[in-house]
Amino acid sequence: MKSYKIGVIGAFGHWNYAMDQMTMQGVVGIAPGYPEEDVSGLKAALEGRGVSVTVYEDYHELLDLMEVAVVNTRLDLNAGITVECLRRDIYVFCEKPVGISMEQLQQVRVAQEQSKAWVTAMFGIRYEAWFRTVKEAVKDIGEVRLLNGQKSYKLGRRHVSYTTMETFGGIIPWGAVHAIDWVHDLAGVDFIDVQALTNNEYNQDHGDLEMTSLCLFQMEKGVIASVSADFYRPQGAPTHDDDRVRVVGTKGIVEYKNGVVQKIDQEGVTELPMKEKEDVFELMLRRIEGEDVGVTPDESLDMTAIAIRARDNALSKR
Amino acid sequence: MKSYKIGVIGAFGHWNYAMDQMTMQGVVGIAPGYPEEDVSGLKAALEGRGVSVTVYEDYHELLDLMEVAVVNTRLDLNAGITVECLRRDIYVFCEKPVGISMEQLQQVRVAQEQSKAWVTAMFGIRYEAWFRTVKEAVKDIGEVRLLNGQKSYKLGRRHVSYTTMETFGGIIPWGAVHAIDWVHDLAGVDFIDVQALTNNEYNQDHGDLEMTSLCLFQMEKGVIASVSADFYRPQGAPTHDDDRVRVVGTKGIVEYKNGVVQKIDQEGVTELPMKEKEDVFELMLRRIEGEDVGVTPDESLDMTAIAIRARDNALSKR
Repeated sequence: MKSYKIGVIGAFGHWNYAMDQMTMQGVVGIAPGYPEEDVSGLKAALEGRGVSVTVYEDYHELLDLMEVAVVNTRLDLNAGITVECLRRDIYVFCEKPVGISMEQLQQVRVAQEQSKAWVTAMFGIRYEAWFRTVKEAVKDIGEVRLLNGQKSYKLGRRHVSYTTMETFGGIIPWGAVHAIDWVHDLAGVDFIDVQALTNNEYNQDHGDLEMTSLCLFQMEKGVIASVSADFYRPQGAPTHDDDRVRVVGTKGIVEYKNGVVQKIDQEGVTELPMKEKEDVFELMLRRIEGEDVGVTPDESLDMTAIAIRARDNALSKR
Repeated sequence: MKSYKIGVIGAFGHWNYAMDQMTMQGVVGIAPGYPEEDVSGLKAALEGRGVSVTVYEDYHELLDLMEVAVVNTRLDLNAGITVECLRRDIYVFCEKPVGISMEQLQQVRVAQEQSKAWVTAMFGIRYEAWFRTVKEAVKDIGEVRLLNGQKSYKLGRRHVSYTTMETFGGIIPWGAVHAIDWVHDLAGVDFIDVQALTNNEYNQDHGDLEMTSLCLFQMEKGVIASVSADFYRPQGAPTHDDDRVRVVGTKGIVEYKNGVVQKIDQEGVTELPMKEKEDVFELMLRRIEGEDVGVTPDESLDMTAIAIRARDNALSKR
């Protein structure tokens, strides 16, 4: 694979997804997404891997240097920076959600239409071993008819930007969006409509932050799906999050929970061997080279859009 | 406990819930709910337990003999028979759903208001060992904020009455209603609103029968809940149905799945010892004697009502 001039703006999210490729290819520089942002952890991680790092105070200086931008700063800022990158034909590996409002998302969409480059949302879970195993197993269960997805996170003490809707965007665009992306990818059909509910009580002084959410999706071809997302995973739980998905088909059911992928069909219950994980950022670079792999630009925007619709539907009912 | 004159109308559903008490107390008679109904299996089961059985061709003959009626005939007929019983002050242990339309349910409600007796829906799962274990464990997880319930059934070949909405009523009033009852009992708050989706494709020539359903509930105090119900449990699965519930509280999460009740809190993950199961019909008889135990008359009607609302909401979107 060809080498790219990679830069990183912000250190708020999942820059780690790009770490293996940055270790191999190096970085042209890193910069905070806003003046107060601390990027020292990212710098140290890169240097710990033997990558020499130039830190720019203003990310605009990076715009002349990059071909590929890893954008993961405060959630309300990612869309605007993505637009700036796209206007300069810089490919963007963007923290999810790509935007926290329909207006932001529309700006990204327009910029992408006018750009030679495009944006890939950090839907990295789709390339984890368990998800790839589920995805392959779903081929053997006939027509997918019903899906249940779950994200459950430990709350801990979140950055102050999580506490206002204007800087965070809500649990659905931030967390449930992963399960929305799984459901879409596994069902192989698009969303038609969504109804959602959220609640932000008992959030331990986290302001607007919603602790619970539920989404109900009508999809094409009569497929239906639900997604549950919450911040109530107890501190004593063995893992930070509890990702689950259940895919119900006409000839069997595939499920992931607790590190195990299971299929039930007329033969009975089978625990499936795990496939290898893939590198979501490497797949993005291969897509730039023309391969049809990884998260597509349309998925990156469309999953964000349905998540924002769900969030707004829930808010309208409060 | 005092002895009651117990009769059975119909043999379509869960008469087995009453079997232990009928074995001890005997039955005054059994009768089909409609002329063609075959009650020979019920008769044989009772006689196999040493209970002598008189079969009446017309259930109206039983109405003069019974104090307590076990009503479980074709699903569209249970409400009308329940009304007839209530008008004669006969207590009714009624198959769920107690009615398959709001009109039917309203007739039962009016009859109950004017009767010395009342109706108990066959929400027997609530007294199974696993549910009692979950119910007790929920006391230790703070405020309940989010619940996810599931019913998943093997389809097999269903009685012809399942194939029209007019004689069956739909998967939500018939199946999801159990999980609706669990959610209500475990949350300790009432339902405010429901949104639902169903689909009846790929139902192997079962007419109207819905294969999938999802319900989204807004409850009091900001509690939210989802219920998933389907007929896609594969024939090769180890059990007929796959009941699950997940209760998310401010201090922990309690779950039931695959025969195991699990609690996660700051101490970590604990598998809970199972409580003893209870006899839902015995509890009903004890309620007649004045004890505050078992399924209440209000629950019996209210859970049916919210299930019918959900079914109608889903149908309105088709």
